[in-house]
Amino acid sequence: MKNNISNEQCGKQSIKFNNPPVIISHASVVGEMEGKGPLASYYDEIENDATFGQDSWEKGESEMVRRAVSLAISKSGIDKENIRYIFGGDLLGQLIGTTFGLKDFDIPVFGLYGACSTCGEALSLSAMTVAAGYADYVLAATSSHFAGAEKQFRFPLEYGNQRPLSATWTVTGSGAFVVAGASKEQPMSGYPHISAITTGKIVDYGVRDSMNMGACMAPAAADVIYQSMYDLSLKPNDFNKIITGDLGKVGSEILIKLLRDNGIDIEKQHMDCGVEIFDNSEQDTHSGGSGCGCSAVTLAGYILHKLNEHEWKRVLFVPTGALLSTVSYNEGETIPGIAHALLIEQG
Amino acid sequence: MKNNISNEQCGKQSIKFNNPPVIISHASVVGEMEGKGPLASYYDEIENDATFGQDSWEKGESEMVRRAVSLAISKSGIDKENIRYIFGGDLLGQLIGTTFGLKDFDIPVFGLYGACSTCGEALSLSAMTVAAGYADYVLAATSSHFAGAEKQFRFPLEYGNQRPLSATWTVTGSGAFVVAGASKEQPMSGYPHISAITTGKIVDYGVRDSMNMGACMAPAAADVIYQSMYDLSLKPNDFNKIITGDLGKVGSEILIKLLRDNGIDIEKQHMDCGVEIFDNSEQDTHSGGSGCGCSAVTLAGYILHKLNEHEWKRVLFVPTGALLSTVSYNEGETIPGIAHALLIEQG
Repeated sequence: MKNNISNEQCGKQSIKFNNPPVIISHASVVGEMEGKGPLASYYDEIENDATFGQDSWEKGESEMVRRAVSLAISKSGIDKENIRYIFGGDLLGQLIGTTFGLKDFDIPVFGLYGACSTCGEALSLSAMTVAAGYADYVLAATSSHFAGAEKQFRFPLEYGNQRPLSATWTVTGSGAFVVAGASKEQPMSGYPHISAITTGKIVDYGVRDSMNMGACMAPAAADVIYQSMYDLSLKPNDFNKIITGDLGKVGSEILIKLLRDNGIDIEKQHMDCGVEIFDNSEQDTHSGGSGCGCSAVTLAGYILHKLNEHEWKRVLFVPTGALLSTVSYNEGETIPGIAHALLIEQG
Repeated sequence: MKNNISNEQCGKQSIKFNNPPVIISHASVVGEMEGKGPLASYYDEIENDATFGQDSWEKGESEMVRRAVSLAISKSGIDKENIRYIFGGDLLGQLIGTTFGLKDFDIPVFGLYGACSTCGEALSLSAMTVAAGYADYVLAATSSHFAGAEKQFRFPLEYGNQRPLSATWTVTGSGAFVVAGASKEQPMSGYPHISAITTGKIVDYGVRDSMNMGACMAPAAADVIYQSMYDLSLKPNDFNKIITGDLGKVGSEILIKLLRDNGIDIEKQHMDCGVEIFDNSEQDTHSGGSGCGCSAVTLAGYILHKLNEHEWKRVLFVPTGALLSTVSYNEGETIPGIAHALLIEQG
């Protein structure tokens, strides 16, 4: 395949696609808690069995990934054989949720880890790949599972430990997206497209509290949002929404303050997937939702719906990740953050 | 930056770069055991302190990454500010080796996990990124640490457990590479270049023995080597070497047999980094070396030296990974493999 592209390195950290890749299908599969939340009507599938019919939480997460990926492929109308790569990842050590979820699809895989920012990383690399003509269709998929993540990062659920109010609730959910190259012969208008991406740096403000991930990630989110607007010459008013992944209430306040200190006020446009996904007064989820699945299912459900319905024209989608393991945490390391921004537009 | 590229989707899984990206610098930092091995003279730095002057093995791994990345950048002669992205990963849960090794470089990061195939994944994405014009320079870095990996995957060293002969020895090492786009104005002849890549699928033959990783990975290596030769219309005789990552002796025999069953005989050209890196008769490393660092330091040390000296003209470099965690293993899951192939040529 020959192509004649002129994508642009934009400023310090961004890439602008002159023929923006399009998200031609998307699927979201979530757990019971998410299915009782305010965004329930936007998900494709709500599963009330925490192990998704398997015999462990981890195998349940893989089954959830399998369902989301299958659904995104079938909704796209594209034969599985024409999807050239999958970009995917999750929160579990050595990406076992993703590995066992993807292994039977027989599609080349790039495994990714960006903590809860992985959905942004996967969509960025997907967009780069199809915009360069390396593939016509690729798939991005990420997931997280409440019980698996609690066991991995905090305490097994059986301990019944108490959680501070700053703690977030890991979303049980998987979002999958088929991303296609925009071809001049067959313009893909009508689909939301990824016009630009800004890839984040690891930002470390020295926070060490694993029960306050929002505070760990807010500086990384502020950094990438600032850089994205600067590189792309955009202002908060140019967006319908500026959407972070899972800062929660505590982290969102820090983000808005940090950007305000740098001359940018995003309070009107800001929305956080972690804040929207649960109803804290009813669901007792403290600071909000988190996990790779949080931003992924909110994008696949609510956000792309708003874009597809033309209620929104342009959003900055910024999944946020806290970079820690129990080993790094117990050895006294800080918890740095990372965030990746995508400019997603409709029409 | 404008560019006019015509890269090719080649066959089912490969990409051929019409202006192949070049590896303009490379660095290898290893531990004491590797420094006593047969490839010792090819490494840039041998550190005899297992914690690299830090207070834990994990922090030591991060320090090793930091040194390898710093050295690769300084050897490249490129200002750090001009390196647009880092693609990196390691074996530890949530990539803490990489995170804390890279966090102070202030360069956007894509975190990757492909088990011991991560060096292949990182170099593939690096090549794709510069060949598409998304960056002029990027860096790929991977690492592993014997003691950190034993603690993560098997038993803490203090247990003094016995290891079966099929078990491999995780390499303490980090390899880093600066990859540049080939520009027509400034042809980069004289450097080894990445002419094509073949991205691997997850291949699961149902092996469940975590002390025999070679057997888990050999089918994935066979799959990607077969596909790479088919997509690129190359035969074993076209290569000076076909180099797998860390199959060890046991896995290498399986690989050769599997390919022979499919009509390809690579016995003459085959070399395995895990077999070469230690002297088993002297060093008692059983089936050989393994880990993300194994193929990375063998490439950065020995292989690129052979290419730079024009002793070899063309190699297929195939890092191999076993996809498991202690959780997946203890829950009775199989150990699937993955491998990524790069066609690296000189001149």
